[in-house]
Amino acid sequence: MRVYLDNAATTAMDDRVIEAMLPFMKTYYGNPSSVHSHGREVRSAIEKARKKVAELLNASPAEIFFTSGGTEADNTAIVCGIETHGITHAITSPIEHHAVLHTLQECAKKGKIKLSILDVNEKGEIDLGQLEDLLKVNPKSFISLMHANNEIGNINDINRIGELARAYEVFFHSDTVQTMGHFVHDLKTLPVDAVVAGAHKFHGPKGSGFLYVRKDKKIHPFIYGGAQERNMRGGTENVIGIVGTAKALELAYEHMEGHRRHIEDLKKRLIDLLKENIPGVLFNGLSENLEESLYTVLNVSLPPSEENRGMLMFNLDLNGISASGGSACSSGATTGSHVLRALRHNSEREAVRFSFSRFNTLEEIDYTVDKLKELYSVTV
Amino acid sequence: MRVYLDNAATTAMDDRVIEAMLPFMKTYYGNPSSVHSHGREVRSAIEKARKKVAELLNASPAEIFFTSGGTEADNTAIVCGIETHGITHAITSPIEHHAVLHTLQECAKKGKIKLSILDVNEKGEIDLGQLEDLLKVNPKSFISLMHANNEIGNINDINRIGELARAYEVFFHSDTVQTMGHFVHDLKTLPVDAVVAGAHKFHGPKGSGFLYVRKDKKIHPFIYGGAQERNMRGGTENVIGIVGTAKALELAYEHMEGHRRHIEDLKKRLIDLLKENIPGVLFNGLSENLEESLYTVLNVSLPPSEENRGMLMFNLDLNGISASGGSACSSGATTGSHVLRALRHNSEREAVRFSFSRFNTLEEIDYTVDKLKELYSVTV
Ligand SMILES: Cc1ncc(COP(=O)(O)O)c(C=O)c1O
Ligand SMILES: Cc1ncc(COP(=O)(O)O)c(C=O)c1O
Repeated sequence: MRVYLDNAATTAMDDRVIEAMLPFMKTYYGNPSSVHSHGREVRSAIEKARKKVAELLNASPAEIFFTSGGTEADNTAIVCGIETHGITHAITSPIEHHAVLHTLQECAKKGKIKLSILDVNEKGEIDLGQLEDLLKVNPKSFISLMHANNEIGNINDINRIGELARAYEVFFHSDTVQTMGHFVHDLKTLPVDAVVAGAHKFHGPKGSGFLYVRKDKKIHPFIYGGAQERNMRGGTENVIGIVGTAKALELAYEHMEGHRRHIEDLKKRLIDLLKENIPGVLFNGLSENLEESLYTVLNVSLPPSEENRGMLMFNLDLNGISASGGSACSSGATTGSHVLRALRHNSEREAVRFSFSRFNTLEEIDYTVDKLKELYSVTV
Repeated sequence: MRVYLDNAATTAMDDRVIEAMLPFMKTYYGNPSSVHSHGREVRSAIEKARKKVAELLNASPAEIFFTSGGTEADNTAIVCGIETHGITHAITSPIEHHAVLHTLQECAKKGKIKLSILDVNEKGEIDLGQLEDLLKVNPKSFISLMHANNEIGNINDINRIGELARAYEVFFHSDTVQTMGHFVHDLKTLPVDAVVAGAHKFHGPKGSGFLYVRKDKKIHPFIYGGAQERNMRGGTENVIGIVGTAKALELAYEHMEGHRRHIEDLKKRLIDLLKENIPGVLFNGLSENLEESLYTVLNVSLPPSEENRGMLMFNLDLNGISASGGSACSSGATTGSHVLRALRHNSEREAVRFSFSRFNTLEEIDYTVDKLKELYSVTV
């Protein structure tokens, strides 16, 4: 049995997404910037995809820009948001994805901004009071705080953060890579200026995603070149990626409630079985809390064990289970997780992130707990 | 009959490229940064692709970085080449692609560099004497001069430009988007520091390409995030794009001579038939010269004609012929071509770029000339 429980790193593509992409590999190959019929039929597919994404998020098509994924979208929002709006100070948290953290640190290193990093407690929670204090003394600020954390699953209240941002009239970017396609985003009412997506987190293609930028907070391009994406991103478009991204988001919205219920059942069962079967098990961040964390993520802290020390990922893999120690997509398991460090996670204990998708089954959860029991020599 | 003669804008994917990509859509979906088996099998495909590209170009795998296409690769080479190496002056030509020109202009606007733009004559040729004069007085320079122009097909002697760059110890970036996969690049002997590719120009996928940076001219990342691409480009990799890019380049190299002969025949026939049949026809840039221009591009200047004024692209399209007025991928036909402007092209005449691939046939050339004859009311 091979069990894939690393869906926060990436998901398997939905067959219907692949089907939607195939015609643009085989038949419709024109350059969307070409004005002849070969080009027009492809351009129309891109604009249909943009309209679909905008519709689902209650945004306007002119606010959606396709990118090569969540990372490029984060880089664009941050670098160009700061430059375009003449911003000199940014606020973030220590548990942001590296696409945000490294980008902001680079801006600070280049002297473009002063960077303030909020404190987090041992559960990974930020303090909105501290955020407001910073806003009071830094009128020209850029806030980048993620919607949900990719390692521990913590959900930030981006509604309240956004209201603060509005009150202080600052730019608010939220890395929504882990929630896009899993939660409803109504961008007409949500007080954010920029959000992002990577399609491969919701059964779409890797290397494809989008950036939303609110109409009245326009930014200049990150990648210069042709007039593509309404002059906002040069480069011949990744047509199959764009078509696949829109299709994946459409499918995600169509069945969101059902998928959520199914995945929540998996997560609850894993929590219950681990508590029952692994004495001393803990859960990192807020991930045990079903209200305040991603239903797709459970970050487990296992009791100290000689046999598994530094070997747990390897041992799970040998037993047919793909999971993640920290975040595969940012740091790799070998360099250690900056998120767990920020939470002062006890390094005697192994942390493992199990992350679920609609393709997982209850049997896979049971199998995983059985293997963990064996690895932790717990005999029933 | 539908004839596609816009292959400098983009090409149809080769079926074998699609076949190589499909398993990474359906079966191998892991995140290449994940250390478990789902991840490793994908990582290994990426590294195999990198090795293949490096091998074909006689480079080292550590010098090849996959990107979202030629435009991102150009932006990376320019912005990061200039920043990393503390460069304060850049030299380019007025007929570079916008991926180069706009990026350099943006660097100049931000005050990072002073930008010198070489003169071109009415054939689009630069003067290496002028280049050397600029190098003499600007020791910390960045040269960006394309290998071949996408609109008129002119080939620059990048060997000689590179020798000058070496002599003056400056960074030399060449936009090789139009020659990659159509000409052999031996990067061990070619004196360039950075070259780029967009796979969709040689029957690979759109939105995928690569950047080569010489080992001793390392640059910092353009997109920050995870440790992907040896810390040189954050972001979950476009796996299908990468696999397709390497496969397309492999196929291009395998049959390059045969394809070249076939395509040269098409170009020669088009030149001959046009000269025979359209009185007053001219060719822009060096494109009539088979030695000094791309064999894939012929840029035709048609005699003034009331019926076709501003309508030629439309008329060709109506007659089933997809070609380009200027460059579809940079400017679109409606905003006019900065390249033809630089060449002082007579605006009474319509310019049309016909660009060929191995999928074109002699019949298609004949058909195209027949239609042009009709449009220009030439009766036989
Ligand atoms: C000379 C040249 N440079 C750069 C590009 C941009 O490459 P891409 O389309 O892969 O972004 C193109 C074509 O679009 C080109 O012809
Ligand atoms: C929270 C978060 N932000 C950004 C990213 C980067 O997105 P992408 O993988 O599409 O580059 C990821 C995952 O990789 C993520 O989990």
